[in-house]
Amino acid sequence: MAGNSFGQAFRISTAGESHGPGNVVIIDGCPPGIPLTVEDLQFDLARRRPGQSHLVTQRDESDTPEILAGVFDGITTGTSIAILVRNTDQKSRDYADIKDKYRPGHADHTYDAKYGVRDYRGGGRASARETVARVAAGVIAKKVIARAFGGHVIGYVRQVGDVIAQVDDPASVTLDQVETLPDGTPNIVRCPDPEAAAQMVELIETVRKEQDSVGGVSEIVATSVPAGLGEPVFDKLKADIAKALFSLPAVMGVEYGLGFACAHLRGSEANDPYYSEQGPGG
Amino acid sequence: MAGNSFGQAFRISTAGESHGPGNVVIIDGCPPGIPLTVEDLQFDLARRRPGQSHLVTQRDESDTPEILAGVFDGITTGTSIAILVRNTDQKSRDYADIKDKYRPGHADHTYDAKYGVRDYRGGGRASARETVARVAAGVIAKKVIARAFGGHVIGYVRQVGDVIAQVDDPASVTLDQVETLPDGTPNIVRCPDPEAAAQMVELIETVRKEQDSVGGVSEIVATSVPAGLGEPVFDKLKADIAKALFSLPAVMGVEYGLGFACAHLRGSEANDPYYSEQGPGG
Amino acid sequence: MAGNSFGQAFRISTAGESHGPGNVVIIDGCPPGIPLTVEDLQFDLARRRPGQSHLVTQRDESDTPEILAGVFDGITTGTSIAILVRNTDQKSRDYADIKDKYRPGHADHTYDAKYGVRDYRGGGRASARETVARVAAGVIAKKVIARAFGGHVIGYVRQVGDVIAQVDDPASVTLDQVETLPDGTPNIVRCPDPEAAAQMVELIETVRKEQDSVGGVSEIVATSVPAGLGEPVFDKLKADIAKALFSLPAVMGVEYGLGFACAHLRGSEANDPYYSEQGPGG
Amino acid sequence: MAGNSFGQAFRISTAGESHGPGNVVIIDGCPPGIPLTVEDLQFDLARRRPGQSHLVTQRDESDTPEILAGVFDGITTGTSIAILVRNTDQKSRDYADIKDKYRPGHADHTYDAKYGVRDYRGGGRASARETVARVAAGVIAKKVIARAFGGHVIGYVRQVGDVIAQVDDPASVTLDQVETLPDGTPNIVRCPDPEAAAQMVELIETVRKEQDSVGGVSEIVATSVPAGLGEPVFDKLKADIAKALFSLPAVMGVEYGLGFACAHLRGSEANDPYYSEQGPGG
Repeated sequence: MAGNSFGQAFRISTAGESHGPGNVVIIDGCPPGIPLTVEDLQFDLARRRPGQSHLVTQRDESDTPEILAGVFDGITTGTSIAILVRNTDQKSRDYADIKDKYRPGHADHTYDAKYGVRDYRGGGRASARETVARVAAGVIAKKVIARAFGGHVIGYVRQVGDVIAQVDDPASVTLDQVETLPDGTPNIVRCPDPEAAAQMVELIETVRKEQDSVGGVSEIVATSVPAGLGEPVFDKLKADIAKALFSLPAVMGVEYGLGFACAHLRGSEANDPYYSEQGPGG
Repeated sequence: MAGNSFGQAFRISTAGESHGPGNVVIIDGCPPGIPLTVEDLQFDLARRRPGQSHLVTQRDESDTPEILAGVFDGITTGTSIAILVRNTDQKSRDYADIKDKYRPGHADHTYDAKYGVRDYRGGGRASARETVARVAAGVIAKKVIARAFGGHVIGYVRQVGDVIAQVDDPASVTLDQVETLPDGTPNIVRCPDPEAAAQMVELIETVRKEQDSVGGVSEIVATSVPAGLGEPVFDKLKADIAKALFSLPAVMGVEYGLGFACAHLRGSEANDPYYSEQGPGG
Repeated sequence: MAGNSFGQAFRISTAGESHGPGNVVIIDGCPPGIPLTVEDLQFDLARRRPGQSHLVTQRDESDTPEILAGVFDGITTGTSIAILVRNTDQKSRDYADIKDKYRPGHADHTYDAKYGVRDYRGGGRASARETVARVAAGVIAKKVIARAFGGHVIGYVRQVGDVIAQVDDPASVTLDQVETLPDGTPNIVRCPDPEAAAQMVELIETVRKEQDSVGGVSEIVATSVPAGLGEPVFDKLKADIAKALFSLPAVMGVEYGLGFACAHLRGSEANDPYYSEQGPGG
Repeated sequence: MAGNSFGQAFRISTAGESHGPGNVVIIDGCPPGIPLTVEDLQFDLARRRPGQSHLVTQRDESDTPEILAGVFDGITTGTSIAILVRNTDQKSRDYADIKDKYRPGHADHTYDAKYGVRDYRGGGRASARETVARVAAGVIAKKVIARAFGGHVIGYVRQVGDVIAQVDDPASVTLDQVETLPDGTPNIVRCPDPEAAAQMVELIETVRKEQDSVGGVSEIVATSVPAGLGEPVFDKLKADIAKALFSLPAVMGVEYGLGFACAHLRGSEANDPYYSEQGPGG
């Protein structure tokens, strides 16, 4: 059964394993006339890339994308776009030791149960390496959104273990805050609260020394979202977003707006009263 | 843009407003040979029905379904099934007072912004009345699941406001516990912890007197789920479940497994170690 | 596997058997603001209805549609529309004689092979009665097309057996010519060439006396179709039209434009040279 | 709007232009455990390749496919498969002369009308070069069919201009007959009737000298097709086949079974009477 596509009007289809030749995404439904270069893709691919700091998985790849179709003279043509990101790290290990073992918290057993065979090198299709194709598509999606609505979408780390960042106004967080600390050094945990960021780094370093890992929470903010986006009743915006997020390997929970805090609130507290920018009666 | 269908192999499409003639669901992809009667549908439709106690919306309808297609001699035929639940309450009110008003926490403004027109009677298509079609389809889905896997799916109320039920083993909760209290009276909040259920009733009564409402959390448990159900990478089981749940009007958060608790845990705590029912080496 | 939906942005889903309670269609993606009444539906449903003349299947039903959802105050609301056409003829026969027989040229055996059970009354889901749901959806589709493009879609009979109508300019055929003969009597074969129409009637009467049937060809013309309608590469306009037509029970061939005549032509004969309405250089 | 995918359970998505970097196909839903090598793909890609004889478009490319994902140790894994065929001929011409011209019988104007921009090099996405991705996917589809049903699918040329081949038993035509003439030379028109094949070659040579082209008819035969394949009512097998064929650039007509010949036949002539391989009563 096919399950590697997401979206209707703007639909992405992906393929690729952790240690196969590469990861591919076809983006179908992108409007024509949008400037798109390899450099546009590379910025976000570089952000996604592991091996950027001592904190994360040691995998060193340049992740250079190649645009195989759908772009002519630097402009999208309205036809389907294909992007390939080769795996350069693909032959560097011996996987004999994990070939017959199921790692807890991974999909090894699930794939064997489902398919009877699996690409055991680094998780195969179940590896987070798969998200390289999503990130490439996301670059284009952000361009489409910016042109259509004028807004932006920004994500950052809100929590690592018990360290919770103080973010008073999520809509005002900037990409610069997420990428760079006040002292000009790289914000390797991408948390816009510098104090929390420092504590997160410390916590992760401690956990790594214990050969362990630790959970966390990311927050994504979109601005200038027009009223009425999404389709009732099953393709509500919040439903499609939830599906996209839950389709990421490690995601175990998604909140929208106030999220689970609503469970504790009265309706009178949770409701957003309407107001008109033109004042009463406007 | 079409958004009123859910699912691929087993796909439901729905239509219907709160105070129009009725709600309809077409179920496409149901296997042949499954016994299905109006009585089967009525049990869960009756559970969904408001007006069952003094705690909830006062809407008194019998919700009698009619099977219009796809069933012959009491057995599904493999062709598409259509079920109609008429709205009997449809003409009883005067809506002049809400025609030009947007209710906070409702989709009134959203529909006007999106479509330029709306059926303002009781929320129209955005009313929770729409779920009557989902419940009818769910009865059939549960039959398909039971035949295919031998398991069951059961839901109950875990939290209302600050009252949180104690449920030690979710997988062992029975439908009887959810429907009936130990003293034999109806469990009107459908919480399997009788003490919490009593507190929930009390809280809701208090809130109602203050003309307010209060949030809550439901929990759903499925048993005998086979390994490998769902499709990588976008149609993972947890992703499809999250989309379905988030497509319900009031849902603002979904957790799967440990959910947000994972954010606080180390990998060594969150991972499920594998074991074989045949013992080590099995 | 679900197969009872057609279309993406404007999607219809249908259910219903020949002799079950009724046929239902859900139309999803219809724009808001389109006037729609039961009377609008009834005109084309009446045209589809068998039993209108002595030439066709004797089935006498009024085919009165009921709009169950998606229309408020006579206007589509943008939400999904549901239409029900009940079968009034459903209990009038004894089907014991065909219960265990497969009719040549029908889907009886195919349904048994596929599903293991079937509704044998009058063909069940495989009956041409199923098209009543398509016709209802088609009424709405024609309204959407008229509003979007200003054109019309008209169909008529081009051939019955060896009788081939002379239609010099398909785009100029009117609904009136298709419905009514020059002498004011109903054009029961719906052929816009009156002479051919008379011969078709004669042929069908002869064939009926011999307890036989005869094939034919219909032609459909759309005007004001905008350049670029349809989606490359798989959802080309001609591809979607071909799928829709081939999904009708008896259709065995579809031609688009010149059709199979192209096989005999040189490229220089088959190509449409471009011209500008503003003259050369325009 | 996305239109570059075909199929549900076995779904292909394609991208690629005539003179861009390459053509890509993602095959989603292929069962695990099917042997697949580059050599498997190359046989049919070589058959599709232009420039094989003096009769056709002079484009000389080796069309060497690369399997980028979905295959491990020579076996499909059940995850999505990606195949890339690079365009090696991409930079060899100067397209200045066609940049501002619309070729009759091509999609040049249509793409401009639809998208406002186009890749004018050799037709861009509208080029028949696009079918290289379909052919690669077709190799896999044929393997899936062979494993599931044990049958084969074979295509050949039935007609070129007024030359019509005599093929008495389509189901018995062999790939060898289609590829090789009785004298051992390549059957460059791929017509299994050697006499007609010679006449076709002669006709095409004549037409080429006149700087013209000529139409034709292909025939495709599938054997061992199980009863009940396809989904009622819109996804009938004949409907899906018709859509796939009509999505090819030059296809203007599709017949299934007897096709348009049915229009001239009586029902008594067109129907296939049933028989049992076990004899009467079997």
